[in-house]
Amino acid sequence: MLATLLPFLFVQAAAAQAAGQTQPDPRSPMEIVAAAPASDWREIGASEMLVMDVGGGRRVVVQLMPAPFAQAWIGNIRTLATAKWWDGTSVNRVQDNYVVQWGDASEKKPLPPGLSAAGEADYTVSATSLNPREMTLGPADVYARSTYFYRGWPIAGDEGWPNGGAQKGFARGARAWPVHCYGTVGVGRDVSPSTGTGAELYAVIGHAPRHLDRNIAVVGRVIAGIEHLSSLPRGTEGLGFYAKPEQRVPITRLRLASALPEAERPRFEYLSTSSATWTRYAAARANRQDAFFIRPAGAADICNISVPVRAIP
Amino acid sequence: MLATLLPFLFVQAAAAQAAGQTQPDPRSPMEIVAAAPASDWREIGASEMLVMDVGGGRRVVVQLMPAPFAQAWIGNIRTLATAKWWDGTSVNRVQDNYVVQWGDASEKKPLPPGLSAAGEADYTVSATSLNPREMTLGPADVYARSTYFYRGWPIAGDEGWPNGGAQKGFARGARAWPVHCYGTVGVGRDVSPSTGTGAELYAVIGHAPRHLDRNIAVVGRVIAGIEHLSSLPRGTEGLGFYAKPEQRVPITRLRLASALPEAERPRFEYLSTSSATWTRYAAARANRQDAFFIRPAGAADICNISVPVRAIP
Repeated sequence: MLATLLPFLFVQAAAAQAAGQTQPDPRSPMEIVAAAPASDWREIGASEMLVMDVGGGRRVVVQLMPAPFAQAWIGNIRTLATAKWWDGTSVNRVQDNYVVQWGDASEKKPLPPGLSAAGEADYTVSATSLNPREMTLGPADVYARSTYFYRGWPIAGDEGWPNGGAQKGFARGARAWPVHCYGTVGVGRDVSPSTGTGAELYAVIGHAPRHLDRNIAVVGRVIAGIEHLSSLPRGTEGLGFYAKPEQRVPITRLRLASALPEAERPRFEYLSTSSATWTRYAAARANRQDAFFIRPAGAADICNISVPVRAIP
Repeated sequence: MLATLLPFLFVQAAAAQAAGQTQPDPRSPMEIVAAAPASDWREIGASEMLVMDVGGGRRVVVQLMPAPFAQAWIGNIRTLATAKWWDGTSVNRVQDNYVVQWGDASEKKPLPPGLSAAGEADYTVSATSLNPREMTLGPADVYARSTYFYRGWPIAGDEGWPNGGAQKGFARGARAWPVHCYGTVGVGRDVSPSTGTGAELYAVIGHAPRHLDRNIAVVGRVIAGIEHLSSLPRGTEGLGFYAKPEQRVPITRLRLASALPEAERPRFEYLSTSSATWTRYAAARANRQDAFFIRPAGAADICNISVPVRAIP
């Protein structure tokens, strides 16, 4: 028997009901976000951001995942940034519709002391360790039994929500993991049992490579300057590695934002995924009502409901 | 009530059974494709390809959709290419994680005579007009009740397959339409009731914007040289338009491949989506068995099962 096809997903109806609405919001997703009250935004802490400069004024900012996800790798990343380990390394791989990858091209640069070794079990966390009040049900998914947004991040789970989502939280033993979307940052590794240290990182620059979920550590996402990575020339060697050393893009400086002088620190905020604005925004992403659209999709995949992030002036 | 979450999709089991196998294929998707017999490949006709040169030896090849999809627009595109209408126009818009768009930046260049006017109803076709022998069931989808591959193209439909896919073909009244994936080429338009002529085209360079399905005409896909579009500098104006005319990327020549001298014509072939190799390839995309993967996904969305296309030497 071939797999039963999936019922059409009425995100709109569900979200509108959750928001106490009976009619779809006529505004575009961007208009809904622009109208959000200040209380619906959450500032990202300075120790939760990496600031990577790649020369010529090109700056990339990466937001790190919150606990309890990928904490061993993120601890290593903080150690590496504090040791200025990435300064003088480079972007070495740009594979179209897949990833941009950076780190030490020689693979011989000594690592700083004190790095942790994470195991494959750490690609997922216990779903019951998450705060139910911070969880918002996400859309249906072909890769996982459940999805949700947790403190601003798209997450998948291996169990459905109790009572079809009416009751928050998961049963004991349920696992949860971050998903790979456009802009997701993960940890390069060798074949199993290697899980990588965090010294070799990549950012997704194509269609969500969800097959990497639970196979690689997701540690963050690019929140500014992804165009400085996604528009780089593609590498012509296998897997998109650059053929010649001079094609590599030097990383001039990579720091935790908290390590920069306060005047130089970027400040960003994300739309709380527990807010009323989020509910309206997610519904509008699934059912575009703005003038351009003649037929709302009635659904959106989790990577098509990107969490709004903006600079704080 | 929130929407019922979707059952996990066992593409592997379904595809393995269809192929008469009981064990997953241990090879990578690329290895499976490399081992395909010559009879599993289909050459793309010279009148089914656009060859776009953007200077500096950068060549982009677009495969046009087969009948019955989008034929009014594709007829216009053939007329425009034959009239050399795009020569001297430019790439004017590059929006990160969305589209690259090209055409006449002045919006004043006269169009050649004889263009057809397509209606919004032409965004879809009657599913019963498709040849059932060319249809292969695709994966579960959150945007549509059914998906399949038809003559090498990912397609969605508004009805499930009869008998869960055991019987091919759709009921009378069922509609089918091409889906937006990475590399998809579509027709830019103004707000409804405009459907565009085909003179303004875009290619997707990010996560599949499936909300555009049935809202815009899909006419083809980039089969070579997408890196010459996806690596262009992003535009800084609204929607990614270039701020200054000199930032636009000139299109030096755009022709149907059939209009080029025979020695200059590119030749490409695609893996037949009705072949046994396709079945194995699609199963492997959903359940990666190669050494890098520790946990196969058990599923793949339709845009993550890209149809293999290769140059004929």
